[in-house]
Amino acid sequence: MHPDVQSPALSSAEALRTFREFAQSTLLGHDAEFDSGAEPPLELYRPLHKLGLMNWWLPTEYGGAGLSLADSVDIVSELAYADAGSAFTLLISILGSSMVQLYGSQELKERYLTAMTREPGYASALGSERAAGSELINLTTTLTRRGDDVVLNGEKMFSTNSGFADYLVVFAKSAGAKGVASYHAVLVPRGTPGVEVVKRWDMIGLRSAGTYQVEFTDCAVPSANVLDGPGLKIIEVGLNSSRILIGAIALGVARRIRDLCLEYAIAKPLAGHKLIENAVFAGKIGQMEMQIEVMRNQCLAAARDYDEVMAMPDPAREFLQRGALRSALTAKMFCGQTGWQIATVGSEMFGGLGYTNDMPISKYLRDIRAVTIVEAGDDVLRELVFRRFVLPSDRRI
Amino acid sequence: MHPDVQSPALSSAEALRTFREFAQSTLLGHDAEFDSGAEPPLELYRPLHKLGLMNWWLPTEYGGAGLSLADSVDIVSELAYADAGSAFTLLISILGSSMVQLYGSQELKERYLTAMTREPGYASALGSERAAGSELINLTTTLTRRGDDVVLNGEKMFSTNSGFADYLVVFAKSAGAKGVASYHAVLVPRGTPGVEVVKRWDMIGLRSAGTYQVEFTDCAVPSANVLDGPGLKIIEVGLNSSRILIGAIALGVARRIRDLCLEYAIAKPLAGHKLIENAVFAGKIGQMEMQIEVMRNQCLAAARDYDEVMAMPDPAREFLQRGALRSALTAKMFCGQTGWQIATVGSEMFGGLGYTNDMPISKYLRDIRAVTIVEAGDDVLRELVFRRFVLPSDRRI
Amino acid sequence: MHPDVQSPALSSAEALRTFREFAQSTLLGHDAEFDSGAEPPLELYRPLHKLGLMNWWLPTEYGGAGLSLADSVDIVSELAYADAGSAFTLLISILGSSMVQLYGSQELKERYLTAMTREPGYASALGSERAAGSELINLTTTLTRRGDDVVLNGEKMFSTNSGFADYLVVFAKSAGAKGVASYHAVLVPRGTPGVEVVKRWDMIGLRSAGTYQVEFTDCAVPSANVLDGPGLKIIEVGLNSSRILIGAIALGVARRIRDLCLEYAIAKPLAGHKLIENAVFAGKIGQMEMQIEVMRNQCLAAARDYDEVMAMPDPAREFLQRGALRSALTAKMFCGQTGWQIATVGSEMFGGLGYTNDMPISKYLRDIRAVTIVEAGDDVLRELVFRRFVLPSDRRI
Amino acid sequence: MHPDVQSPALSSAEALRTFREFAQSTLLGHDAEFDSGAEPPLELYRPLHKLGLMNWWLPTEYGGAGLSLADSVDIVSELAYADAGSAFTLLISILGSSMVQLYGSQELKERYLTAMTREPGYASALGSERAAGSELINLTTTLTRRGDDVVLNGEKMFSTNSGFADYLVVFAKSAGAKGVASYHAVLVPRGTPGVEVVKRWDMIGLRSAGTYQVEFTDCAVPSANVLDGPGLKIIEVGLNSSRILIGAIALGVARRIRDLCLEYAIAKPLAGHKLIENAVFAGKIGQMEMQIEVMRNQCLAAARDYDEVMAMPDPAREFLQRGALRSALTAKMFCGQTGWQIATVGSEMFGGLGYTNDMPISKYLRDIRAVTIVEAGDDVLRELVFRRFVLPSDRRI
Repeated sequence: MHPDVQSPALSSAEALRTFREFAQSTLLGHDAEFDSGAEPPLELYRPLHKLGLMNWWLPTEYGGAGLSLADSVDIVSELAYADAGSAFTLLISILGSSMVQLYGSQELKERYLTAMTREPGYASALGSERAAGSELINLTTTLTRRGDDVVLNGEKMFSTNSGFADYLVVFAKSAGAKGVASYHAVLVPRGTPGVEVVKRWDMIGLRSAGTYQVEFTDCAVPSANVLDGPGLKIIEVGLNSSRILIGAIALGVARRIRDLCLEYAIAKPLAGHKLIENAVFAGKIGQMEMQIEVMRNQCLAAARDYDEVMAMPDPAREFLQRGALRSALTAKMFCGQTGWQIATVGSEMFGGLGYTNDMPISKYLRDIRAVTIVEAGDDVLRELVFRRFVLPSDRRI
Repeated sequence: MHPDVQSPALSSAEALRTFREFAQSTLLGHDAEFDSGAEPPLELYRPLHKLGLMNWWLPTEYGGAGLSLADSVDIVSELAYADAGSAFTLLISILGSSMVQLYGSQELKERYLTAMTREPGYASALGSERAAGSELINLTTTLTRRGDDVVLNGEKMFSTNSGFADYLVVFAKSAGAKGVASYHAVLVPRGTPGVEVVKRWDMIGLRSAGTYQVEFTDCAVPSANVLDGPGLKIIEVGLNSSRILIGAIALGVARRIRDLCLEYAIAKPLAGHKLIENAVFAGKIGQMEMQIEVMRNQCLAAARDYDEVMAMPDPAREFLQRGALRSALTAKMFCGQTGWQIATVGSEMFGGLGYTNDMPISKYLRDIRAVTIVEAGDDVLRELVFRRFVLPSDRRI
Repeated sequence: MHPDVQSPALSSAEALRTFREFAQSTLLGHDAEFDSGAEPPLELYRPLHKLGLMNWWLPTEYGGAGLSLADSVDIVSELAYADAGSAFTLLISILGSSMVQLYGSQELKERYLTAMTREPGYASALGSERAAGSELINLTTTLTRRGDDVVLNGEKMFSTNSGFADYLVVFAKSAGAKGVASYHAVLVPRGTPGVEVVKRWDMIGLRSAGTYQVEFTDCAVPSANVLDGPGLKIIEVGLNSSRILIGAIALGVARRIRDLCLEYAIAKPLAGHKLIENAVFAGKIGQMEMQIEVMRNQCLAAARDYDEVMAMPDPAREFLQRGALRSALTAKMFCGQTGWQIATVGSEMFGGLGYTNDMPISKYLRDIRAVTIVEAGDDVLRELVFRRFVLPSDRRI
Repeated sequence: MHPDVQSPALSSAEALRTFREFAQSTLLGHDAEFDSGAEPPLELYRPLHKLGLMNWWLPTEYGGAGLSLADSVDIVSELAYADAGSAFTLLISILGSSMVQLYGSQELKERYLTAMTREPGYASALGSERAAGSELINLTTTLTRRGDDVVLNGEKMFSTNSGFADYLVVFAKSAGAKGVASYHAVLVPRGTPGVEVVKRWDMIGLRSAGTYQVEFTDCAVPSANVLDGPGLKIIEVGLNSSRILIGAIALGVARRIRDLCLEYAIAKPLAGHKLIENAVFAGKIGQMEMQIEVMRNQCLAAARDYDEVMAMPDPAREFLQRGALRSALTAKMFCGQTGWQIATVGSEMFGGLGYTNDMPISKYLRDIRAVTIVEAGDDVLRELVFRRFVLPSDRRI
């Protein structure tokens, strides 16, 4: 833990207030900069480290703030209210770190999780490939054993934070092996030879975040860096936390859009009155507010499911049995769909001005679009829900 | 409490299982009878009384099962899965009984709440009027003081259960008085002279329930039957519990529609396969399942808000300050809208057969439509949410 | 032609006015009777015969009014405005008659088309079967040659008007034969032995129309009654006109819903004003009106496509080449979807009253639902459009 | 007419083919450049001038191609298929030129319309203002008579092409005058002193077009430049043609999105097959194709309404009586809404790749968004349709 970090750890309410103040004072109102495509503004997030709140979900034993995923929903919402790309940068490390926390050796955990709190650290997970898309079963990155090492070869399509992360969690398939046991998750520390960041993608939204294409060429790491468990299941488990928090990005952006509509409507003349007095406007915002509440409750319900498993005696094992939490899939799908509806209504609210970059609504539209797209689109997830939670009739609600 | 009632009270899980068994064995599969427009089948519900589960939300001190509103969400869902009209008949007594419980004198509570558990009892609330619609501020039913009595005159448009309820909670305005203090809620016992059930409405759905038009002509009851508090606020408080449980009706009907689709798809040939193997079908049901989960979580979140207030030292007072719970408004709006989407998809699923009464989907469409309409439509509620929870910026989410 | 029929034939505008007057004076305002499930009120339609307007699309050479399909769009809209079931009864004969007109021998045409104008006549087409659904390629009704006759055996699921039609056009498969040439369309006159109406279906809407299940047992008709062409293509051609006019049913019902909303809103008090002055109401009706215009233009565009082919030197051959007109598929799909949106909005417009049968909105909801369901549902049609008009890139718009 | 222009004028079909070839060869595939925010690429459009097709709607008497508005629908669709911003630049001159054609003096027409065909010319219309928004009745730009001149003062918010147009049609209010007669449309030639282009707006889409803020300071033009008629009605008439063609932009972009989906799906692996073989994909594209057809038919129907008025003996007078054509309002509203639905579906089709600028879908989303926003948003238009075409019951469909 950084020496400046205040201790003891903040309460949930204090932490949330601290994040809100940080977001409002440091991030809010700089939409154009965040949208410019400049390098990820990591320096901006340093104050969080000083406050002990970088990677806030990490357990106190690794120097973290030990905040729950339920706490994280509102934290991400506050960050995304100010800048969704920053929220994404800060939360997505949980995808890598949670896999290490659950399936890494004690040594890996002590080394790499603690590193993320001692210095402002980031983690990245590398699954998707060009041909395989999100069908990881078709991945072609190979893992070969060579002495005490494993050697990785292949190319990973989209991975956020991988350009600057402390470590990468890479998914690969044992050359020659067959079946689910042949997929592995491997921790690759920054600076390992054979890792090349091919390019940073020019994303349409979340543009303050960095998403990269990465190539592995004879990249060797110790066998002890292979996480303990079947790779396809490990990534499924890892996605539980990130999908919930990605849902919370939509929550935060939707809240921002609602407030932007209200700010605009207070001043906008309409037929001798102000827009805010108009019944059609009231109806639209009332509907938004209703939807926002539902989004939040779904994220919270999913986060509590997650926290409940994490509080069990053996969460790693429990999660291997459960795989993808249905509430996490639902949170991402629902928030993505509903957030898009809210952004659609919002983008019609400002007349011609809303069609210019003088208003940030274009950024919010593009930012919120990510929620439906990243970590598997709705068609894939609907099919997964159908197969896992509908066909077995006792798993239906 | 009925002597046969098993004691001690059932746990939440046991109660839910009992309701499910009751619904599956007694109600399920009789769609045509329930939809026929025959008299409300109150005899069918008698077993619940024997099980100590009629008006299951009533506190144990009045002989009730003391189940929470959170428990009630799944209970209503199970009932509505089998017949939404029966669910409505059984739950809607909470609207009247909760107002008595919160704002009635100790004597009224002991007499009228206990009566609802000693015999299978029902309560009814009478607000809406022809001209006023749901704008109760414009109601024209008058309350006049005459000695120790108050006398009611006027006509009430829609009130469910009033044709057979033990008591009616009637909203009226003091003749001559002005302002919010002039609106009153009055408990009128069954059989009081001057109460006439004008007609039973021919509803388009929930047809096993009975909704009536009732006229009051010089109907006198003791002044002690006037509930303690401003009438318009009392009804707003009363609607909290019923709106949440009406939302749960949509949940139950949506679950039934999903299962009906699956039953049909297992057997339906399509292009050399079965419909259940079709990707478009899987996508539609996956989306339904996702929506059903969100509906349930929103109902539960609202119910917990309600239960939390009820657990406070002075819930009556707390509720007078809060009025309508935003989560309750949201639950009814969201479940009504989403349930309709699910029913729309469901009604296209069965081809020509689904356009006949050989399939019950027409009943489910008409039943679920109620959720958006009863206890104020979405336009009214959107405007209420806007005024109460958006304009005061500190009440926004 | 009936001797009382005024001649010469009416102009399009006169015919439309006559239909409107007929619909307004004879049909409008009797929603409850039409919705009762009583026998199809064929007597009510007799005046149309006297006016020379029964089966108005039949060419003058067969005693018909010779009105175009473009004329028919507004005619059906006017009929459906008053009662969708009556509109369906009156228009659906075009499905059978157009197949006879295009693919019947001169003798069949003179005999059976003329009969439909001499007396008030009806035609029916029998395609769907229980197992095959709308996949006619799987039909199991057999056609066997026996001397100069063909003999039919099998059961037909849904056919409108077949309980009272002058003739049935039945789809069957040559026993033993293979491929597309084995499917046939056969004209079976009323009263032919071996035809049994098994039952009339209890439909959820269009309840003044009669849709029947019909069984054929060794039903023999002359081989000359077999229409000339491949059966699966003939039915596809026949559906062109009926699908367009079914789309026009949605148009008529949507217009009626709009007007019902306006009638209601003029009188309905709302917050010290009338509902009709409310901006949210105006917005909803403005949207409906916009959609209604688009529905009509699509039906007209499709009808003109149809009329254009019918004006060609050899429309029968041209239609065999074209099969399903894309504009006809589009008209039915679009009007079904959009009509349902309008009915959904309409069904929320009348508060509690709209949830009773004192208002006819439940009937309109159920009536308009048919448009999406009959003559193949949207999933089937979307796939057909994709295969026929998208995959061959030169057929895309 | 430019000397190189081939004569006689091209037929509709030839013109359309020429535009398609131009669009495919010159514009298609340069999404990134068009989206860059660089200066409007007017040079690119020069070949159209050589072909006699700049401002293709202008009558032959002014050197134009004399193409109808119905012809223009597909022309704009072809241009927008390749680049919506270019389509907008090229079509929007019709807003200014049609007002001059209908309400300008013979001299103005000969001078300014002919100029648009002799050299590649552009026109611009300047209505909106910061405070007035699209409520032109509140405009504050003043017109003062000074000798034989009129003098303009004020600022205009959004006007496309005004940075380089041959002439501006400016809306202003007579200082001191009252009522509808005080609003005027004034032709201001390029280079008139007192006109200052304050800035080019940074638009979120249609970024190859130029939309400007323009200020008028003591800008004097001859009184003969004032168009003949009430200004508010003249702009309403002018918007008829541009709104229809803006609808056609959505048509073109939607067609492009559909084709992009198909190009992608042919190559994209999915579960051992290609995406194009997937039933969910087929259903989505079938729905798109259906919607695209309806969009086109509505644009064509509106364009024919327009062409019909233009073919009348006195179209200027007829249009003053009719004002906004309902079919034109409908075309813009419907195409904007439907185009957005298509773009929404399209934007989910390409997985992570669709969230990068390696795919042009972000541009298409932002481009198509304009259709709902420019020339009055849907809330304004719904209210206008309600007031003009619903309240007067004889104007309803």
